[in-house]
Amino acid sequence: MTKTTMTPAAPPPPPTPPGRIDPADAADMIARMRTGERRAIASVITELERLSTAAPALLQTLQPFLGHALVVGFTGPPGAGKSTLVNAVIETLRQQGRTVGVIAVDPSSPISGGAILGDRIRMTSALDDDGVFVRSLASRGYLGGLSPAAVRIIDALDGAGFDIILLETVGTGQSEIDVAEVADIRIVISAPGFGDDIQAMKSGLLEIADILVVNKGDRPGAEQTMQQLMGALSIRASLTGKVPLLKTSALNGDGVEALVAAIDDIGRRVALDDPKSRRRRRARYLIARAAADLVAQRIRQGGSASLDPLADAVLSGTMTPDSAARQIVER
Amino acid sequence: MTKTTMTPAAPPPPPTPPGRIDPADAADMIARMRTGERRAIASVITELERLSTAAPALLQTLQPFLGHALVVGFTGPPGAGKSTLVNAVIETLRQQGRTVGVIAVDPSSPISGGAILGDRIRMTSALDDDGVFVRSLASRGYLGGLSPAAVRIIDALDGAGFDIILLETVGTGQSEIDVAEVADIRIVISAPGFGDDIQAMKSGLLEIADILVVNKGDRPGAEQTMQQLMGALSIRASLTGKVPLLKTSALNGDGVEALVAAIDDIGRRVALDDPKSRRRRRARYLIARAAADLVAQRIRQGGSASLDPLADAVLSGTMTPDSAARQIVER
Repeated sequence: MTKTTMTPAAPPPPPTPPGRIDPADAADMIARMRTGERRAIASVITELERLSTAAPALLQTLQPFLGHALVVGFTGPPGAGKSTLVNAVIETLRQQGRTVGVIAVDPSSPISGGAILGDRIRMTSALDDDGVFVRSLASRGYLGGLSPAAVRIIDALDGAGFDIILLETVGTGQSEIDVAEVADIRIVISAPGFGDDIQAMKSGLLEIADILVVNKGDRPGAEQTMQQLMGALSIRASLTGKVPLLKTSALNGDGVEALVAAIDDIGRRVALDDPKSRRRRRARYLIARAAADLVAQRIRQGGSASLDPLADAVLSGTMTPDSAARQIVER
Repeated sequence: MTKTTMTPAAPPPPPTPPGRIDPADAADMIARMRTGERRAIASVITELERLSTAAPALLQTLQPFLGHALVVGFTGPPGAGKSTLVNAVIETLRQQGRTVGVIAVDPSSPISGGAILGDRIRMTSALDDDGVFVRSLASRGYLGGLSPAAVRIIDALDGAGFDIILLETVGTGQSEIDVAEVADIRIVISAPGFGDDIQAMKSGLLEIADILVVNKGDRPGAEQTMQQLMGALSIRASLTGKVPLLKTSALNGDGVEALVAAIDDIGRRVALDDPKSRRRRRARYLIARAAADLVAQRIRQGGSASLDPLADAVLSGTMTPDSAARQIVER
């Protein structure tokens, strides 16, 4: 008897190739995703990330399930320990029985692929935990900011039923700012010894923070950093008492539960908003950014001759860039 | 004999109050600035920074003297040692007899005022050196990027006759990107142990770099960082062999002369460009950014009802943010 004469058992269904869902299978795929099938979640995310032909059908099918998850953005300078803190938050949320989706915005993905994702999985020991799903997302590049795909991936994780979605930036730049805009709750992370960055925070990051965290709270200088930030907050009367300032040590877990409690505090307020309006805000933000890029690109590239008089007026101080811009946008 | 009966010597002319130059005195002020009078330089910069009533007259008077200075931008993640490296470069340039203007873009200035400037002056021991002029410039805030005033201050330092103008960012964010756009030569600085940031560089900062520097070259891991960057460069065929990669140690001065030589190498090419076109490029950039901000602001604030169909189309995946933006910009 040779192998070829064996009556074969029915072969297992082929694994769904990433980026290859038939639009007609969208409903089935979403149903499988909602039962927690990880391969289905990964496939849906990939389709949405690439905006494949199946993406509209998938998003359509997802609509009734959206608006449940709370989207929490983590931002701050490199070296402040964002990843470690996010991992500690994941652990606390899991201990409380909540499911967590993580989107790590990784500006390097076009080249280094899954390297950072791999690190993350090792670090979180989340590999065997069905209650956590980690996705590393390519930004369109350091200068370009957050990929619009992030908003669709939020929808995928939301539709898959994760209670809370953590958005984390790796590195610096526009993508950090974007994450802050796209999230429902913004957490700005600092650490002892970030003199320059505390300075930077004073002027901008403070204003977008819903919660301020001094991480690496076990290190010398943490108290001083707390005081500096407290001082910075007190200068802004509008922020006084409104932005919780917390000290954490992701290493030994100190303060992480308090951070999760602060997130939940704000989360209860966010939950009162119309979920549709939160989702539309994200879409409006993406459109606004795309329009801004388009306008800037047209101005810098095209018709430089017609722009020269305005450029010269700006150079000679008779016109501000703002009024020159207004003239251009208005005509 | 009482003090009041003394015939007073002619009192010294009152110091020019900052921000209070009479437009009629513009020519006189520029003349004093061009003799190297530091108070005049400071006053002109202040007028231009604030775009005072005297600013147009000052800029008009400056025009014949502009286009001499080379503008060199230093950017990179916090902690890479930008300030220390800039100080080492200043020293080398001074030893070569060249005069240096420095604009430190300091996102914190609205609050902390001269703190960083003070540090800089202590660090550079440039306080008594007429060949160096350091100005700390407020960015409009972390999120807003570089102040348009930077371009006018470049003109002031250029008009004052400084050979080279170093633009340095403190902290992270949009202002770094802007500095890179405004400079004639862009230097991107990294350091050992900046794993995430090397990743970030791969995807975006590499493309804007004219020179790549691994600072803190005396530290362990410097060679590995060099290799990583070399690898990143080699992936981009368009960059291979075109972007010098240098190792420096600002601490002991290693490599700083080579960096200055690399700057001069590129500087000779830049000098062939029409100075007017370089200045117009800066102005066009400012106008483009202002227009982009204006458009984004209008989209996010106004007429959200008319935007809702587009936002919903983006959310449902039937439209990309780019095409939604194109529809808006076109109508």
